[in-house]
Amino acid sequence: MKSPQELAEAVVQKMYDNDPFSKWLGIQVSDVEPHRAVCSMTVREEMLNGFGVTHGGVAYSLADSAFAFASNTVGVVSVSIDNSISYPAPVRAGDELKATAELRTSANRIATYDVNVVNQEDSVVALFRGTVYRTKKEHFPDNN
Amino acid sequence: MKSPQELAEAVVQKMYDNDPFSKWLGIQVSDVEPHRAVCSMTVREEMLNGFGVTHGGVAYSLADSAFAFASNTVGVVSVSIDNSISYPAPVRAGDELKATAELRTSANRIATYDVNVVNQEDSVVALFRGTVYRTKKEHFPDNN
Amino acid sequence: MKSPQELAEAVVQKMYDNDPFSKWLGIQVSDVEPHRAVCSMTVREEMLNGFGVTHGGVAYSLADSAFAFASNTVGVVSVSIDNSISYPAPVRAGDELKATAELRTSANRIATYDVNVVNQEDSVVALFRGTVYRTKKEHFPDNN
Amino acid sequence: MKSPQELAEAVVQKMYDNDPFSKWLGIQVSDVEPHRAVCSMTVREEMLNGFGVTHGGVAYSLADSAFAFASNTVGVVSVSIDNSISYPAPVRAGDELKATAELRTSANRIATYDVNVVNQEDSVVALFRGTVYRTKKEHFPDNN
Repeated sequence: MKSPQELAEAVVQKMYDNDPFSKWLGIQVSDVEPHRAVCSMTVREEMLNGFGVTHGGVAYSLADSAFAFASNTVGVVSVSIDNSISYPAPVRAGDELKATAELRTSANRIATYDVNVVNQEDSVVALFRGTVYRTKKEHFPDNN
Repeated sequence: MKSPQELAEAVVQKMYDNDPFSKWLGIQVSDVEPHRAVCSMTVREEMLNGFGVTHGGVAYSLADSAFAFASNTVGVVSVSIDNSISYPAPVRAGDELKATAELRTSANRIATYDVNVVNQEDSVVALFRGTVYRTKKEHFPDNN
Repeated sequence: MKSPQELAEAVVQKMYDNDPFSKWLGIQVSDVEPHRAVCSMTVREEMLNGFGVTHGGVAYSLADSAFAFASNTVGVVSVSIDNSISYPAPVRAGDELKATAELRTSANRIATYDVNVVNQEDSVVALFRGTVYRTKKEHFPDNN
Repeated sequence: MKSPQELAEAVVQKMYDNDPFSKWLGIQVSDVEPHRAVCSMTVREEMLNGFGVTHGGVAYSLADSAFAFASNTVGVVSVSIDNSISYPAPVRAGDELKATAELRTSANRIATYDVNVVNQEDSVVALFRGTVYRTKKEHFPDNN
């Protein structure tokens, strides 16, 4: 049977291996533990929007990946119900973004995570908050 | 001087021409009028996430593009403050998504838009609500 | 066995009878049907905040009551997970507010409702969106 | 001229003196400094809703008051644009709630604050996040 840390790492590895969108964005998972995940990526020119800054969907997707990884570390398939994001500062091509997702609250089958996204100067470029519903499906049903 | 409809179309055309991320996603703008934009896209295999369904960032990005287009139709550069999204149904590879962004409320320099994203069966797959701040910068400063 | 309309009305009546906070606010329920509720109230001087306008918690509470009534009309105890609200216009003492709560989406045990709050001039003063989790507990267990 | 701490305290005192709704709820302000405010209250029977737990508007109003105080401490009238709240645990009559509002991000005229509401056992009963627009109006125009 996997320890909580082993389970967290195995779940995230399995999810990441099957996540072509995170890979296309260049997302790397740099740190995983139960209820926590850190992801990073470098913004490319092709991720800009019509204002010459990065499309809001990029920082959102990075945060959403970190959120999905963090919220599934406990081994139960956890699906997003709703998320919110605010954008205190623009993201530019070449920026190195780091998203840290951490559990805030958990009750019954509902849990809320915060994800802060910072750039290479440690300035916050996005504040993300997401809520998941924990299904009864396990990532590794034989892990008993 | 452009009419409101001409201005709306010119702004969106200018934004879209400089938006490689929306183009990479395959987003098409199918309808534009003042305070309103409709965008569509077809989900590709490379947009899946670790659950075999579409990464939450894809529907978000489509909604965010429609929101950005709709909120800038009035000719003033309008930037997102914060957005929220909920996911009532999963999105699968091959799904054809359509996002309709419309103004809900406007006051002083703040405006709120709703974006509904439906699939080819007209089922809602994402409810998005976004708030913009209207800057004093115009998209076409000479349009007077 | 109650019809859907009878069940909706019975649930709201039962909830309202045990809701002293809604009563203190002066909230009246004016229209109920499955997945929908309309509530109204008149703003009193004692509901103002430090700016001479109505405390944000007042319009929120009205919207939240309408949301709770609407989301429980189906007879299953449904509890709020998270809500968001925006305030496009100030509310003043004497204003007559009307909140209309309607179902937007429903999937598995999660449902999202929109509540629009307008004043006596039909201007939108609050946009509220709420998500509930449907428990397995029924309001009238013997209704079969 | 007031120091930042003196200004923060003077603004909150002025706001609280004119806030009958916060007073009716029994809200006390226990700690104020620039960009931060702590408020507390005891839940009364008359604040319950139709489920025998506290109406969601009560914890919201407490959080919103703390948010309003914290965001105005800098001396500029700051008005709420939109807020979100989640409810990880029920609140019961007799509970002693404490809301701590703190600045998260600030950019141009927009700022985001987090407010955590805990009960007497230090369990989180509400997570609130609010965004303000900073007007150009000062609370004490002569403070120069």
